Amino acid sequence: MTDRFAYTLLKTDGGARLGEIATPRGIIRTPAFMPVGTAATVKAVYTDQVEGAGADVILANTYHLMLRPGAERVAKLGGLHSFMRWQKPILTDSGGFQVMSLSKLRKITDAGVTFQSHLDGSTHVLTPERAIEIQCLLGADIQMQLDECVALPATPAEMHTAVVRSLDWAKRCKTAFARYRDGGLASPGQALFGIVQGGTDAGLRAQSAEGLVAMDFAGYAVGGLAVGEPQEVMLETLGLTTPRLPADKPCYLMGVGTPLDLIEAVARGIDMFDCVMPTRSGRHGQAFTWAGKVNLRNAVHAEDGSPLDAASNCPAARDYSRAYLHHLVKSGEYLGAMLLSWANTAFYQEFMQAMRAAIDAGRFAAWARETKARLAVEKVGPGGEV
Amino acid sequence: MTDRFAYTLLKTDGGARLGEIATPRGIIRTPAFMPVGTAATVKAVYTDQVEGAGADVILANTYHLMLRPGAERVAKLGGLHSFMRWQKPILTDSGGFQVMSLSKLRKITDAGVTFQSHLDGSTHVLTPERAIEIQCLLGADIQMQLDECVALPATPAEMHTAVVRSLDWAKRCKTAFARYRDGGLASPGQALFGIVQGGTDAGLRAQSAEGLVAMDFAGYAVGGLAVGEPQEVMLETLGLTTPRLPADKPCYLMGVGTPLDLIEAVARGIDMFDCVMPTRSGRHGQAFTWAGKVNLRNAVHAEDGSPLDAASNCPAARDYSRAYLHHLVKSGEYLGAMLLSWANTAFYQEFMQAMRAAIDAGRFAAWARETKARLAVEKVGPGGEV
Repeated sequence: MTDRFAYTLLKTDGGARLGEIATPRGIIRTPAFMPVGTAATVKAVYTDQVEGAGADVILANTYHLMLRPGAERVAKLGGLHSFMRWQKPILTDSGGFQVMSLSKLRKITDAGVTFQSHLDGSTHVLTPERAIEIQCLLGADIQMQLDECVALPATPAEMHTAVVRSLDWAKRCKTAFARYRDGGLASPGQALFGIVQGGTDAGLRAQSAEGLVAMDFAGYAVGGLAVGEPQEVMLETLGLTTPRLPADKPCYLMGVGTPLDLIEAVARGIDMFDCVMPTRSGRHGQAFTWAGKVNLRNAVHAEDGSPLDAASNCPAARDYSRAYLHHLVKSGEYLGAMLLSWANTAFYQEFMQAMRAAIDAGRFAAWARETKARLAVEKVGPGGEV
Repeated sequence: MTDRFAYTLLKTDGGARLGEIATPRGIIRTPAFMPVGTAATVKAVYTDQVEGAGADVILANTYHLMLRPGAERVAKLGGLHSFMRWQKPILTDSGGFQVMSLSKLRKITDAGVTFQSHLDGSTHVLTPERAIEIQCLLGADIQMQLDECVALPATPAEMHTAVVRSLDWAKRCKTAFARYRDGGLASPGQALFGIVQGGTDAGLRAQSAEGLVAMDFAGYAVGGLAVGEPQEVMLETLGLTTPRLPADKPCYLMGVGTPLDLIEAVARGIDMFDCVMPTRSGRHGQAFTWAGKVNLRNAVHAEDGSPLDAASNCPAARDYSRAYLHHLVKSGEYLGAMLLSWANTAFYQEFMQAMRAAIDAGRFAAWARETKARLAVEKVGPGGEV
């Protein structure tokens, strides 16, 4: 076990990278998908199921946790890992994105952002320094700088201002993080990542990346994507951003995505992902499989005794009939959401494992081609599920 | 393993009985509490958690399953045990009670009951013969006769009519069950219970019990109680009913109850129970413990790092802090309902196990006294939870 945070690039295959991040709480094999545990729980899934599925790291949301139960309270209770019973690494976002998407009456200045809680209307201030303090109180292994996420559409001037402000906040976060580390609230095993912003503008992305790299973060994230733009636009922006980031640091694409998104992003050098899709889809009766997405509400499953995937290692995918899952989903039973969220969490991990094996074998491009064909089966499959 | 259904009375201690029911799917230790799996799932609990909690048998509802997914469909899929992945015994009710409480536009005649589904308004007919056919199609190990549950208040004449009709239906159910057994749809390992009705009228209860005993059922249930009457009235009725039932057959009190109800009913000779209370309370943020009921919504738990019960064998009760449970419940997270439903399911089984041990040790009365005192602690405990 290491007592420091360290990334090792093990192998490349085209643009795809195989690596690992060592942390005191365990190794994160990359490319990695982080299940989302917004409010200190991966929704409807037990942590031992998340671990059994193969996840090395999960994400938790600073915005939600600072409002409820509160960072100081979590710290008093021994930190987020102990609170939610997850001993492997946790990455927390900075709260910036959710302040923009969920809170009311936001006011952003260079100092930080003032907003009202979506829960009770109470007023809160999030500065770069406070964002780091909260993440340290939670005990996050990987922390994210506070950044300004511009609501789109935005003018070039607004985009530019946000990039400049985010760079300034990155610097303040780094200073605060170092101070907390010196003060003992953070440890050398914890890491802070910078976030590249700049929308779809090549110049702004370059400016943002270069500014962050000059500050030397332990890792970098690409933010401000997967916010509704077409996949081609996202991939194009990714293609012109990742080459500007150092090869010896992990690169994290925030909030992405579908299995096809993951393939394309890995091909462009991404090492880490998070997305609510597996659990949210699970709660809505949809399963991810190697033959594409399956809508369990569909009557075609009503008398289908076969499981989602007889070859899966996940009991939810392997041991329960589609007919039973269909019945549970139609009946609005908790167990339907539980089993599908579990199965999807496991599928995403299996998917990443297969991707890592393909990179290791030097056949990522072929694997990607084959997998895209497999995933497309559903489009002509029974029930017309797309 | 037996291939027949058989009850053995092992010991008595005052009115309390220790026994076991042998079935081809396993032994049911009595007094037994059956978790309720209405729609082929114990709500928010995995079947391996139900089994791990110590449950020997669960209950499923004929009314719900006949409407969705349908008895013939369950049979086609291999029966209820395989459908829901529960290999131990299952008891099904006859559907009669829920027809009265949930369906619309009921019409009861001597032939049976015609009603409209609460799900889609479709019309269904439940006769004594069909009620047994459905339970055989589901593959229930213990089946219940169709009875008429009178909506209260009712006149003495209405009550009398219902008792007479229920006795007639009991006979028809017995004939149908024998026919299905001869035809191979049921087996000698399956059993049919009669249901004593008669409200709180001693004469009607006696008439009902005597009529059923003359037909020689494999077991008897006391129905029509726990429908809103005071506990004393329920216990008084129980006290004048169970002595009229044969000591060599199991006796089941339907739809009961609180831990205190269970103690009092066992003291009056009851062997089996079912109730939605542990799982329903779990979904509403309430936990059953040896120190009484705990409302996890209460702010007193917000920073309480202690578990519900450090001495429990159930991970949900033993390993998660009250602070975390409070947070999950307040946040409306699935995991809150999951953990509390699991913990409550386990508590009820622990409670029955303790009761069986007390009877076995010949100290049921003392145990009952001590336990009632322990359960009452909450009433003066912090937070004023009653």
